[in-house]
Amino acid sequence: MLDYALLAALAAVLRTGSFDRAAQQLHVTPSAVSQRVKLLEERLGTVLVVRGQPCTATPAGLRLCQHVEQVSLLESELRDSLPALAPAAAPATLRIAVNADSLATWFVGAMAAAPGCLFDLVIDDQDHSAEWLRKGEVLAAVTASAAPVGGCSSHALGSLRYIATASPDYLRRHFPGGVTAQALAAAPCLTFNRKDRLQANWLQAVLGTVPSPPTHWMPSTHAFVDAALAGLGWGMNPEHLVAGHLRAGRLVELMPGRPFDVPLHWQQSRIASATLAALTRAVLQAGRAALRPAAAA
Amino acid sequence: MLDYALLAALAAVLRTGSFDRAAQQLHVTPSAVSQRVKLLEERLGTVLVVRGQPCTATPAGLRLCQHVEQVSLLESELRDSLPALAPAAAPATLRIAVNADSLATWFVGAMAAAPGCLFDLVIDDQDHSAEWLRKGEVLAAVTASAAPVGGCSSHALGSLRYIATASPDYLRRHFPGGVTAQALAAAPCLTFNRKDRLQANWLQAVLGTVPSPPTHWMPSTHAFVDAALAGLGWGMNPEHLVAGHLRAGRLVELMPGRPFDVPLHWQQSRIASATLAALTRAVLQAGRAALRPAAAA
Repeated sequence: MLDYALLAALAAVLRTGSFDRAAQQLHVTPSAVSQRVKLLEERLGTVLVVRGQPCTATPAGLRLCQHVEQVSLLESELRDSLPALAPAAAPATLRIAVNADSLATWFVGAMAAAPGCLFDLVIDDQDHSAEWLRKGEVLAAVTASAAPVGGCSSHALGSLRYIATASPDYLRRHFPGGVTAQALAAAPCLTFNRKDRLQANWLQAVLGTVPSPPTHWMPSTHAFVDAALAGLGWGMNPEHLVAGHLRAGRLVELMPGRPFDVPLHWQQSRIASATLAALTRAVLQAGRAALRPAAAA
Repeated sequence: MLDYALLAALAAVLRTGSFDRAAQQLHVTPSAVSQRVKLLEERLGTVLVVRGQPCTATPAGLRLCQHVEQVSLLESELRDSLPALAPAAAPATLRIAVNADSLATWFVGAMAAAPGCLFDLVIDDQDHSAEWLRKGEVLAAVTASAAPVGGCSSHALGSLRYIATASPDYLRRHFPGGVTAQALAAAPCLTFNRKDRLQANWLQAVLGTVPSPPTHWMPSTHAFVDAALAGLGWGMNPEHLVAGHLRAGRLVELMPGRPFDVPLHWQQSRIASATLAALTRAVLQAGRAALRPAAAA
């Protein structure tokens, strides 16, 4: 077996971002933590922690940390069924990848319905979250792709509906002659980050071509809505977040009746964990209640 | 002078994340873009673009891209004063670092009040945003530190007030005997990410010591509020976002009358740019209207 005292020190450093805070969490001295991590690095012949403010993981460090968290999860379930074992210091932490728009609309409800564990959320685009699963860095993910990652099972959640929205004033300024392909090529839009293809995919769907409009880069779901309200640009916003603004006339649809649906899936590691199974049930229930039913096959 | 046709190709690849989209933006073929970037890499003897989905910058690529954007900004202002020059293809893009809580509360208003440019936002903790300025990767930043970064001027904005909040139900479950140091050490809290010291700093201020409570990691301002509402944990939330919830009783203060104020500063590169100066005026006005006055010196 691996030396879990060393591994726990590594995980605490990476979880808290510092040797001092890890020491406090483990009730040992910072020098003990430092020695354990060094010993582990010597045994493996590779650096595991990038010392800094905060300390971060090398790829090997991250992989080990993920292993420690999986073992902790299994241990916490073992303790539930064998109460004679000493209780764990803290509940297990589940590392999950979720897209920002799901987190802003329906995912917190699912987390709240699956209590008894701590969450470590990684936010990434739904087209890239499967990569975190593939690398073994998260135990489950909300992804755009249905194809199960190796060792994972995949469940359809339904579609998150997006609406291309802008403020009425913005529309008057940039589309005086209507929402034409030419005007769309010149009017500033909003893009979440370099991974975000939503605006491009919607333009492709409605125009059959993708112009390269000037763009703001705005990596926050709520700032996206706020920026549309403030007239900085148009963007694809989740219908949950703009329905009230559309009704009140603070936002308008760029092309009424042309929403864009993004099917989402829940992929979870097949590790035999009751906690993960309970979270999966809560996610499927919350997701299916909030999202539009997946198109019939 | 540098070869700006090559530099523009590099910047377009890094801005759009792909050679194809860069080609479309520059109205040339993808192979022309690829040749220009390769030529630049050969001349410099270093890789500038990490080819991938999306393409990302090496440190040298990022530095060059930043230079191109500064030159574009100056060019766009030159064009304003010399209209005989051919107009620029797109407005200049300002790359700015801002903390997530400012973006969620007052910063979008400042951006909307300084029109005429595009924004490329980098979101980072206020204790770390100055680092982006120091590396020359952004032109301005909202930071916690007043000490000006080299080549930058610093302006006090006022303080963002945080309140330690939780749901009434959470408080009943985890603090049946009151908000004691012992209960605070065991009750799950919320932490934004490994850089976030707000909860620890508040605990230090109110307890004189920092226990290591179990924590959820929740890297989103609005998810922080939603998670507090859902009873997942307590967290330091900006007063702007929780005032309504506190009035309605959906959230309660963990320790009434113990807010935590974080002074913020606007640091901007001293590059002679009218656009940046206009943004600075808008940021100071919006920030000072929304934030609490800085304590008298």
